Formats: sequence, C-alpha cells, structure tokens
Amino acid sequence: MGVEYSIGIDPGLNRTGYALLERTPRGPRLCEGGVIRSTASKTLAERVHEIGSGLREVLEEFGPATMAIEQVFSTPKHPKTALMMAHARGAILMAARDAGAIVVHYTPAQVKKLLTGSGRASKEQVQHAVSRELGLDEILEPNDVADAFAVALCHYHTVRIAA
Amino acid sequence: MGVEYSIGIDPGLNRTGYALLERTPRGPRLCEGGVIRSTASKTLAERVHEIGSGLREVLEEFGPATMAIEQVFSTPKHPKTALMMAHARGAILMAARDAGAIVVHYTPAQVKKLLTGSGRASKEQVQHAVSRELGLDEILEPNDVADAFAVALCHYHTVRIAA
Repeated sequence: MGVEYSIGIDPGLNRTGYALLERTPRGPRLCEGGVIRSTASKTLAERVHEIGSGLREVLEEFGPATMAIEQVFSTPKHPKTALMMAHARGAILMAARDAGAIVVHYTPAQVKKLLTGSGRASKEQVQHAVSRELGLDEILEPNDVADAFAVALCHYHTVRIAA
Repeated sequence: MGVEYSIGIDPGLNRTGYALLERTPRGPRLCEGGVIRSTASKTLAERVHEIGSGLREVLEEFGPATMAIEQVFSTPKHPKTALMMAHARGAILMAARDAGAIVVHYTPAQVKKLLTGSGRASKEQVQHAVSRELGLDEILEPNDVADAFAVALCHYHTVRIAA
C-alpha cells in the first residue's frame, strides 16, 4: 500500500495555506506545508487562477485522498473579504475534485475542540497544540500554514476516532 | 481568420446561464445558449465542480476569446446566496483562465444602460432589448440564458464602441 496523504487548507484570495500530513502507524507526520500567493495587482480572475493552479500543482505532486478545509460562514463581519475568499474556495474545490480528492469541511469550533479540548480556544492555544502534535519545538510560521495543519490534524483525528 | 466567439455568463451555484455570441460583419449572431445545473443533493465541492466542469466543456467546444460576467457585489442582501454564487464564480473564473479566455466584468447598471439606454431599466426591458438585438420574435427563456446574452451583448457593444 502506498503512502496516504491528506491535505489541510486555510483558504484566502491573497494567500492560501496548505498542509500535507502523512498517516503513519506512529501518528501524523508533517510532510509539507506552504503558502500559495496571488499577485495583488492582477485581476480577480487571474488571482483566483493563481490560487487554483498553484494548489493543482501540490495536488498533482502528492495526490492526497482527502482535503480538509474550514467551513465558510454565511454571515461574515467583512462581506467583501468573505466574497473574495469564497471565489478562492471555488477554485480550490474545483482543483480538489479534479484531482479526485474527497473534500471535508470543519467549523473553526470543531478544529479548536479537537486540538485543544475547547471550541473556544485562542489562536495561540491552537498553534501550540499543532506544534506539540507534530513534535516541533516552535510555533509553525507563517500563521496560515499553522492553520492549515490545524484543520488537517482535525481531520486526521476525526477519521481515527470514527474508525 | 476563424470565427470569433465571446461568452456571457449569468453565474449561480444552482444554475449558471451561458450565452455564446459570434461577431459577424452584420452584427452579433446568437450561437448557443444554455444552462449548467448542479445537483442540489450533492456537497458544495461536488456542485462547484459540476458548474466548473460543465462550463469547461462549453469552453473547449467553442474556445471563446473573451468571457463577460456580471460584477459581484460586496454588500449583498442575501449573504449566504452571495457566498454560494462566489464559490461558483471561482470555479467559473478558473475554467475561463484555464481555457485562455480573457475575463471582463460589467456591473448590472452597465449592462442595462448599454442594452436599453438606462441603467435603471427593468428586467423585462432588458430581455426585450436582448430579443430585439438577436432578431428573435419572443423573449428568450429561461431567464438566466437571457441574462447571459445581456452581458454578452454588453461586452459586444463595449468592444465595438472602443474600437
């Protein structure tokens, strides 16, 4: 049997963080994390395409079976930001299904709860939990990569608990 | 020189209308119009993929040089609907840039103004103008196809005026 990867995504039109985890008998192994950026001076169509095609390259390289991504909100504080994020998400979901990955959604509260035991944990507490789980001495940087690993780990444990 | 097509899009997650126009010496010619539907019972990722890959087939068949699409609003009355539409739009923009089409955006007021002379025209006035321009005796059905032709015609004339 081949290596089983899953990918976590922290979506955004400016920057989309991604995090690849490998499932091993000893637990989750950090495989690769990174940020896909779009060029602020370009058009919306170009930027959406930069995010989607950047992710497509990652998916082609690793072929993760599953993509875990944070649930979108319907009543955001910043409607324009949410709309731009949703455009990026559309391209991300398109790339994921093109690559045959199953897409699973988690709410921020689910991610926090699974990693720290509390759905109201702070961003710092979540980042500490991510580093501890991955056996790192320091907080993962940048933030969007840490957040992508958080949702990837949330999925990792959700599947383990359900199995 | 080959036939020059442009495509107009009325985007939506449930249904996305599309309209292909051919530029001829005698004016715009209705080439094909249709609706790409997504399956309501499926997941968001599946639905976004249905819209994006359905459009991809149309783009592959006709190879339009340009895609005209209505501008998105940042302060919508229905935030959830707008977010779902933005997901579909993300997949649509991704498919367009994958196919090498240039994407141009028009506000609803621009579309109305170019077709009827007034940025505050009613939906019915716009649909009448679309039918008249395309030499049709009746109003185009369904609505989303008529709306897609409206934005396609808006682009058609904008380019003609600018040339």
